[in-house]
Amino acid sequence: MAESMLGLKRSHRCTEVTSSNAGETVTVMGWVQKSRNKGGIIFVDLRDRSGILQIIFEESDCGAESFAKAEKLRSEFVIAVTGHVEKRAGGVNENLATGDIEVRAESLRILSESETPPFPIEENSKTKEELRLKYRYLDLRRPDIQRNIMVRSQAAIITRAFLAEEGFFEIETPTLIKSTPEGARDYLVPSRVHPGSFYALPQSPQLFKQLLMCSGYDRYFQLARCYRDEDLRADRQPEFTQIDMELSFVDVEDVLDVNERLLKRLFKEICNFDLELPIPRMTWREAMDRFGSDKPDMRFGMELKNVSNVVGGSEFAVFKNALEAGGSVRGINANGQGAMPRKKIDALVEFAKGFGAKGLAYIAIAEDGTYKSSFAKFMTEDELHALVEAMEGKPGDLLLFAADRDKVVFDVLGNLRLELAKQQDLLKKDDFKFLWVTEFPLLEYSEEQGRFVAMHHPFTMPMDEDWHLIDSDPGAVRAKAYDIVLNGTEMGGGSVRIHQGDIQSKMFEVLGFTPEQAQEQFGFLLDAFKYGVPPHAGLAYGLDRMIMLMVGADSIRDVIAFPKVKDASDMMTEAPAPVDEKQLEELGIEVSETEE
Amino acid sequence: MAESMLGLKRSHRCTEVTSSNAGETVTVMGWVQKSRNKGGIIFVDLRDRSGILQIIFEESDCGAESFAKAEKLRSEFVIAVTGHVEKRAGGVNENLATGDIEVRAESLRILSESETPPFPIEENSKTKEELRLKYRYLDLRRPDIQRNIMVRSQAAIITRAFLAEEGFFEIETPTLIKSTPEGARDYLVPSRVHPGSFYALPQSPQLFKQLLMCSGYDRYFQLARCYRDEDLRADRQPEFTQIDMELSFVDVEDVLDVNERLLKRLFKEICNFDLELPIPRMTWREAMDRFGSDKPDMRFGMELKNVSNVVGGSEFAVFKNALEAGGSVRGINANGQGAMPRKKIDALVEFAKGFGAKGLAYIAIAEDGTYKSSFAKFMTEDELHALVEAMEGKPGDLLLFAADRDKVVFDVLGNLRLELAKQQDLLKKDDFKFLWVTEFPLLEYSEEQGRFVAMHHPFTMPMDEDWHLIDSDPGAVRAKAYDIVLNGTEMGGGSVRIHQGDIQSKMFEVLGFTPEQAQEQFGFLLDAFKYGVPPHAGLAYGLDRMIMLMVGADSIRDVIAFPKVKDASDMMTEAPAPVDEKQLEELGIEVSETEE
Repeated sequence: MAESMLGLKRSHRCTEVTSSNAGETVTVMGWVQKSRNKGGIIFVDLRDRSGILQIIFEESDCGAESFAKAEKLRSEFVIAVTGHVEKRAGGVNENLATGDIEVRAESLRILSESETPPFPIEENSKTKEELRLKYRYLDLRRPDIQRNIMVRSQAAIITRAFLAEEGFFEIETPTLIKSTPEGARDYLVPSRVHPGSFYALPQSPQLFKQLLMCSGYDRYFQLARCYRDEDLRADRQPEFTQIDMELSFVDVEDVLDVNERLLKRLFKEICNFDLELPIPRMTWREAMDRFGSDKPDMRFGMELKNVSNVVGGSEFAVFKNALEAGGSVRGINANGQGAMPRKKIDALVEFAKGFGAKGLAYIAIAEDGTYKSSFAKFMTEDELHALVEAMEGKPGDLLLFAADRDKVVFDVLGNLRLELAKQQDLLKKDDFKFLWVTEFPLLEYSEEQGRFVAMHHPFTMPMDEDWHLIDSDPGAVRAKAYDIVLNGTEMGGGSVRIHQGDIQSKMFEVLGFTPEQAQEQFGFLLDAFKYGVPPHAGLAYGLDRMIMLMVGADSIRDVIAFPKVKDASDMMTEAPAPVDEKQLEELGIEVSETEE
Repeated sequence: MAESMLGLKRSHRCTEVTSSNAGETVTVMGWVQKSRNKGGIIFVDLRDRSGILQIIFEESDCGAESFAKAEKLRSEFVIAVTGHVEKRAGGVNENLATGDIEVRAESLRILSESETPPFPIEENSKTKEELRLKYRYLDLRRPDIQRNIMVRSQAAIITRAFLAEEGFFEIETPTLIKSTPEGARDYLVPSRVHPGSFYALPQSPQLFKQLLMCSGYDRYFQLARCYRDEDLRADRQPEFTQIDMELSFVDVEDVLDVNERLLKRLFKEICNFDLELPIPRMTWREAMDRFGSDKPDMRFGMELKNVSNVVGGSEFAVFKNALEAGGSVRGINANGQGAMPRKKIDALVEFAKGFGAKGLAYIAIAEDGTYKSSFAKFMTEDELHALVEAMEGKPGDLLLFAADRDKVVFDVLGNLRLELAKQQDLLKKDDFKFLWVTEFPLLEYSEEQGRFVAMHHPFTMPMDEDWHLIDSDPGAVRAKAYDIVLNGTEMGGGSVRIHQGDIQSKMFEVLGFTPEQAQEQFGFLLDAFKYGVPPHAGLAYGLDRMIMLMVGADSIRDVIAFPKVKDASDMMTEAPAPVDEKQLEELGIEVSETEE
């Protein structure tokens, strides 16, 4: 039985009723969180998005008919109650925002009944995620998820207001676009009007925002839906949202400046966190050397040290071979972990192997200053001592070393550093440590493709002072590219763009495009570059990740209303799904026979 | 040659330099609108998104090097100029915002050169649209298009700010969803992970916003990209943007109220138009009877009159047959058009035939009061006279009549009314006449499908007082649906939604779904309805159309940065296009062999 709300008007949300309304009549509507009959008095916790309000039904107040209805109330029934606000007789409930008042019901309507939900609607649900995602509409009732979704809304609105104040226009770019081979895999959309042709869904609005700069819009932004058909990791979704921006007549400094002020406003208004400006900057080179990562977590130290010189004369084969092959030996000092049990150290070695290490050398320094080491027998006393000194090892410290190609050493120690910090509980979610990482390499060599690929994208401006190396040593050319890193997560990134047709053509050449391929794929951009292009630069944030960091969520799925799971399906609607043959016929496509 | 802007910082946009800056040094950047050398002085009109500023180069001010560069300037070169602001010596140029000043250049950098554009960058371009769309990045430089795009940005930002103030949360809903057979044709996206399965792009966020109400978010909005794979008309695009909203615990009045205040704010801030509230309302029935349209243009009268009773006794076969077949005879009075030449009247008859009329009967009343009529010989003098009287015909008027099934009569006269208004130039674009049209039929009969289909969508709430007719006379059931009409254009529409599972199931039944089909397609919604649904209602605007009306554009393509044309292709990027065979293989689909 669903009663109409004809003639009723909600006067307050639940927690908008306060002790200042005592004596007034209010009409509130929401869901029954719980209901209990205690000696002929029915107590109902009424829930809406604002929180919980206690309602009291006594037959003498509300009459027999409403009381009879109240007796039937169960969890998740939707009701409308008109009643009288009173200061709470039975003492204040500190757990409720409205804990000092209650509403004595005068009338009740049941707007909608509810079956027993498959899991309780409560904070920090213990229900497993698969079930919650199947019933996402119920999961979304949980107050912690509701807070995440509301923070997301607030962040979007603050961002837009700030950027509008700063002279940005919000301009929508198309999402049925042309497929480009560079970058991740595209989602395709078959065209009905042009059988055999396809649109792609955009991986980002990159080309369009650059064209908008060509067109003189000066400052553009968009909260843009983007798509990547990749195998999903924990923090990836097939569709995701970028805060995307582009500015004309600017250099790196201008982009960083406006974004620092945006971040300051966002984290102040949402997290009440005072971000001190300017945000520290570090070159990519320094980030790798000191932290083994291009997105260092700055909440703790445990920096990498290059001890190649110190162990240069050692006969220890692991060190020697690595150095002879052009690699390095680097270590981290896990302060105070010198007494770590052998078992835990072994686990760290396994962890390191997971990132490509052949092993992990260590020196544990006991409180009495003696060493225990996995490679002591290969080293002289003096060599060990020099190594400990170089690592600033003190009694009680644990020194860990990797020796390999630089790439492997960075990967191993960068991740080991994070793992140790986790074990020592050094990663506080509300300790926000921002960092700009700058001067990324323009290109990186892809073993898989046997050629250089763009580290950011093919439109990134090389640093003027390195451009002469583009033919002789392409890997050494740095880019005017920057990432904004928060607590070890890349929250966003961008670059100054190439605005000169000749440099852009050269970039395509270095990336292995023939002039014809470049023209076919990006002809409209190269054409646009013939008609007066302003210097321009931009940046894009992953909104989902940003919100995740703001609210301290463990999964990106906790900040997206209707997320998809690892196989890119929606557990609630069961998308994707087969479609009518007629739909495929109209599109001129067929599903291939499977070969199973 | 593209110079760097290293060390330069823009101090002002072009029209931000005013006479209050006289005596100061400024640095401006932009495009050369035009450049001319007059007796050794070079005058450059510099353009950016703000407007135009005049720059003057004299060799004595800027030195030989800059002057030599200035001599090379041509249209659309991008330059940076540092110079001295002076009150204009040669008299004020009233055509420019900056017409009372000029900047004497002290230095010049050419940031980017330009070839001669394929068409001039100017307001109200005479260049044909195909060429402009191919070079959209140049077309977008035209000041009139730039104004449209900026208004669009402004409208989006005002809308968001207003709705946030009103307690709405902006929540993003997925765009890779499940295909539903109801409604327009879906765009499909093949799934790589689930070969043979497809996502659909959403025609609207309808189901998700209703689920958000089930989840207790109370007030939702989104500027949502929507997709329809339909054959395009002038005012349609394959992807378009909706201002989409939904509210819980409300009835029709609440939705109309908040939207009236939104529209008032938008039209005040953008068009400086004072919208008087409340906006007039009219039932669908009345709109059809008086205007022959469910989106009447209220800028002029010329209302329809039902003269069936007046001509009920006539032997004129056209009238008689229509009435006997259950149709009607209706007319409009084109005041003052009585002297319309026969040729123009014949053209109107042809126009009417285009909307299904078999003909069009008319009476022209001469200034001396005599009639000229296409059907006088079939009527008695008295009958004619009664007809003229019923139509309030006066000397100089032209009365036009259609006789047919109601649907045809409304279509013919509704369109004829608009055509006559156009001919008489009654349609002023800045005369904003708003109207709510309410109480739409819930269902309409589709001859094509041989069943009733939802007039809005299957989730629309029937009016309580009509619901008992759902089996006996489904076509008579009215819905709690409303459209907002501006100047004869449906700008938006919405409804109260069904929140009762039993009514929703019945609706699916009436629409021809078996319970299994309903469950397969909308199971998650029907399931959600088991767990406590608040009464809810919503509305969505077509943002593109709204902006078109605000700026008085003739085409929806003039308010979209990168629009598609009638065959759903993008003339600039040439999307859609064939893709690599490898991409299709990965998706497990093939292009069907064509049978040509």
